[in-house]
Amino acid sequence: MINYPTLKKVNTQKPATKSHKNRGMRLEKLINEANEYYLAQNVAVIHKKPVPIQIVKVDYPRRSLAQIKEAYYKTPSTTDYNGLYQGKYIDFDVKETKSKTSFPLKNIHHHQISHLQAVEAHGGLAFIIIYVHVHDQAYLIPYNTIKRFIERAKTGRKSMTLEEIVANGFAIKEGFRPRLDYLSALNRWQKSLKSST
Amino acid sequence: MINYPTLKKVNTQKPATKSHKNRGMRLEKLINEANEYYLAQNVAVIHKKPVPIQIVKVDYPRRSLAQIKEAYYKTPSTTDYNGLYQGKYIDFDVKETKSKTSFPLKNIHHHQISHLQAVEAHGGLAFIIIYVHVHDQAYLIPYNTIKRFIERAKTGRKSMTLEEIVANGFAIKEGFRPRLDYLSALNRWQKSLKSST
Repeated sequence: MINYPTLKKVNTQKPATKSHKNRGMRLEKLINEANEYYLAQNVAVIHKKPVPIQIVKVDYPRRSLAQIKEAYYKTPSTTDYNGLYQGKYIDFDVKETKSKTSFPLKNIHHHQISHLQAVEAHGGLAFIIIYVHVHDQAYLIPYNTIKRFIERAKTGRKSMTLEEIVANGFAIKEGFRPRLDYLSALNRWQKSLKSST
Repeated sequence: MINYPTLKKVNTQKPATKSHKNRGMRLEKLINEANEYYLAQNVAVIHKKPVPIQIVKVDYPRRSLAQIKEAYYKTPSTTDYNGLYQGKYIDFDVKETKSKTSFPLKNIHHHQISHLQAVEAHGGLAFIIIYVHVHDQAYLIPYNTIKRFIERAKTGRKSMTLEEIVANGFAIKEGFRPRLDYLSALNRWQKSLKSST
């Protein structure tokens, strides 16, 4: 095995295989791994935000140690990921669907929609990454596209069909390093905007 | 009292007074209040990141309730605040000094310096807000300036004097709404860059 000392963390991962049984559960891990790679390679600065916790009780068993004894999960007020890529603010959340036919839009929470809407309005790049289990494939869907389907849901169907995801999303190809190179899908999205204007 | 229905959260705050005894402790609260105001007024999308927690033990006293029974504070890997303003990625941390003479640079942790450095390199706006107790005044210091003093600390003094903070920082004037309008200091910083080129 070749030893890349500066990429230790990334290289401890096993290479991608065709058996992806727990792939959906691993999606977040793959995104985090991609972010570590982007940072180490000086490509982008993107981090997952910590999970918000409401702390109720803290003990101090030793002077130097704070031990949280009672706390609860809070609803996040934004998305899970944000950061900086090529001078641009980027912001996204990660979802998955095990359905054979569609992605229910109710999986995108109201506060996430408001947040992505605000990001887009202020000139950031807002999107969602959806992992479709039956395709064993993740797609980057621009928020602008999601918005159209949320609009349709007011009078029509409450989900995006898998066909609509394929037609409107940007497939995230799996590679070696990083395995889930989602910024390459983002580049294709941005290129498509330029060529359509 | 005039009733501004869209600004409910902001208006529940008491008006600023001249007695600022616990002002340093309230700095974070004032920044959060400013961020709420900026969001409600469609000026910027800036949020405080949740405090990172290492969760060890979770109980489920009821099926619908997850109760965290053992957890610990983790060292944050980035800064406390980031967001989007006028199409630009902004990133900062908040500090204070009770010293009558200086701000010790060791208060800016190594991982925060690395992070702010990366943000600047990728085209974001990186800075620190320092509240100086003896001045009862907060200053926005561009990361680029901080960097010069960190460089000096390698062979010289390990702190910025209060005079250097005043001379190199942008004072955050206190107003009515938001009380700590730090984006106005950021605007002065950006303007000074333009006029110097």
